[in-house]
Amino acid sequence: MDNFVYYNPTRIVFGKGSIAELGRLVAADSNVLMTYGGGSIKRNGVYDQVKTALAGRKVLEFGGIQPNPLYETLMEAVKLARENRVDLLLAVGGGSVLDGTKFIAAASRFEGDDPWDILAKHAEVKSAVPVGAVLTLPATGSESNAYAVISRKSTQEKLAFGAEPCYPRFSILDPQTTMSLPGKQVRNGIVDTWAHVMEQYATWPQNAALQDRMCEAVLLTLIERGPRTLENPADYDARADFMWSATQALSGLIGVGLVQDWATHGIGHELTAFYGLDHAETLAIVMPAILRHQKQSKQTKLLQYARRVWNISDRDENTAIDAAITATERFFHSLGMPTKLSDYNISPADAARKVGDRFDSRGTKLGERGHLGPKETREILMAC
Amino acid sequence: MDNFVYYNPTRIVFGKGSIAELGRLVAADSNVLMTYGGGSIKRNGVYDQVKTALAGRKVLEFGGIQPNPLYETLMEAVKLARENRVDLLLAVGGGSVLDGTKFIAAASRFEGDDPWDILAKHAEVKSAVPVGAVLTLPATGSESNAYAVISRKSTQEKLAFGAEPCYPRFSILDPQTTMSLPGKQVRNGIVDTWAHVMEQYATWPQNAALQDRMCEAVLLTLIERGPRTLENPADYDARADFMWSATQALSGLIGVGLVQDWATHGIGHELTAFYGLDHAETLAIVMPAILRHQKQSKQTKLLQYARRVWNISDRDENTAIDAAITATERFFHSLGMPTKLSDYNISPADAARKVGDRFDSRGTKLGERGHLGPKETREILMAC
Repeated sequence: MDNFVYYNPTRIVFGKGSIAELGRLVAADSNVLMTYGGGSIKRNGVYDQVKTALAGRKVLEFGGIQPNPLYETLMEAVKLARENRVDLLLAVGGGSVLDGTKFIAAASRFEGDDPWDILAKHAEVKSAVPVGAVLTLPATGSESNAYAVISRKSTQEKLAFGAEPCYPRFSILDPQTTMSLPGKQVRNGIVDTWAHVMEQYATWPQNAALQDRMCEAVLLTLIERGPRTLENPADYDARADFMWSATQALSGLIGVGLVQDWATHGIGHELTAFYGLDHAETLAIVMPAILRHQKQSKQTKLLQYARRVWNISDRDENTAIDAAITATERFFHSLGMPTKLSDYNISPADAARKVGDRFDSRGTKLGERGHLGPKETREILMAC
Repeated sequence: MDNFVYYNPTRIVFGKGSIAELGRLVAADSNVLMTYGGGSIKRNGVYDQVKTALAGRKVLEFGGIQPNPLYETLMEAVKLARENRVDLLLAVGGGSVLDGTKFIAAASRFEGDDPWDILAKHAEVKSAVPVGAVLTLPATGSESNAYAVISRKSTQEKLAFGAEPCYPRFSILDPQTTMSLPGKQVRNGIVDTWAHVMEQYATWPQNAALQDRMCEAVLLTLIERGPRTLENPADYDARADFMWSATQALSGLIGVGLVQDWATHGIGHELTAFYGLDHAETLAIVMPAILRHQKQSKQTKLLQYARRVWNISDRDENTAIDAAITATERFFHSLGMPTKLSDYNISPADAARKVGDRFDSRGTKLGERGHLGPKETREILMAC
């Protein structure tokens, strides 16, 4: 494995009724800006739980953060946070609300001319307003990392940043808050978690035995608990295992010291941009195609994946790997997740042309070896 | 799983040559007290690496911290730290040096009358001198948790404490520093790590699928890498996997939300006290005997252990569990670790009487259900 630094100071407060812990986590004289999305927290009771726990504090609100949080919207919140000298940003929602709130936190204390530079020019984030979170949608891992992805409407850009001051000081995870989620969002969350693990795991053997086993631990848990989570939304134990798996998949731990892939995400983002598919829907389509296309370069790890995750014992390695990729697709199908462009009436040739041309214009190279260019991307999408 | 809080702010700096990172981690105007043990760091080059990396800082030294760190010794360091207004305690060594240094850190800022109260009366540790660590002996996990075990010579007590201010701010783990360790210490470290996992894992099914899988991840890694670590001390990859496994086994993550056992440690500590066995030597003797004695109460988890960790497929559950416990002993033997009191010429009857009587006088109850009293302890030791 490569040398690494692992640092994750987020305090995770996990379990039934844990939103009430806000009363202890947030100082009585705090000046809070509570951020959220489209308002589902008002329908499922989370909003009321938060307000009750924060009783006595000064709490401003900023709702309407979009699923792909927009810079233009977030800058309104930055104005509000600055004018009111807010000392805690409390994100209540899923990954988009958390990501957006991390940007509000960094931009509010940014000393340069234009906060967009944090994203476009990797301007250093020296400080941020402290962020806390109440997570209601397990998927992105944003509740336990320092990263955020932000979109800008005016320029059609979607960029990422990460900075230590943006680690949530605390994240509250009550699996009960996920019981009212639509099945589609749970399905998406399971597939998103799966893909996060595979991007870290399915590369080449990197002499990191524990990291491999921890990646497999998350996948095996998803196989065991994912379907049960979907079948019975009131199954607290299954929801809890899924929620914790989603956090661990992208808290940074399971992939320390590894050169990682992330090509599925790179191509998937373009499918969302061109066709409006959900993020997880794109991952379920692209990942199996990449694994098949890269069977040779990923051979040893895919065989390990077949043996350890899918318990496939075929002696012929190629057969075992094919079976493992098929098993992955079947698992997605079992969750109600399609795995082909045709399921959305999208032509592979159209996708290959559009994404390939964009990657041509940008000189994009993806994958753990930076060896997937526009040509390979077209081949992969033709097989989607 | 139970509700839990997980918080671990230690920055892990892992890999070849990482001691040089001290130059970045320690401020130039720091006033450091470097603590260490018997002086092996002067023979293996670690001392020189640390001094070189800290060049320009004011660095005091306090050596001679014992394998079971003594309160009496540590209080001399407290005096030194207070008199010199030290602002960083840098522990260089294994778990005992780290544990001792955490106590020095807490005691130096303790506002009560007697720092022993931190251990004896669980007096609150509100503040501590910041602690950093350079780990040279993988085993205890102290490099990534807030706990310490301290002994007092004058009263023959051995007590533990834990407090958030005692988390190391950073811990440097360079697997190369472990290459000069005697084989016995590596063997002990592997068994200690194994036992730390089992104390968290081998209880009853607690609906914590990911925690189970992560525990198994550490055990499977030890099976894969432990023997190689011992056979070839220069095998960096194996040393790195072992070192990282030891840290993860007791960083708090793999056992979140679980009611844990720790009876093996409870009985083992007494064998060290009465007969002077190494800590890990006691664990290798006591653990298999407890697993056999508690086969019924731990049945479901032991069967899972047999299936997942040892790949034992016997359909008869009892046979599978017996085989798994035997496999555990064989694994310890393969590392050169004895598993019976008779290997040390200690009579089981003598041990049962001594430890049983002590537990009688203290009213000791051990185990995940608090159901192992003096009677059960005697039975277990008779089988050791």
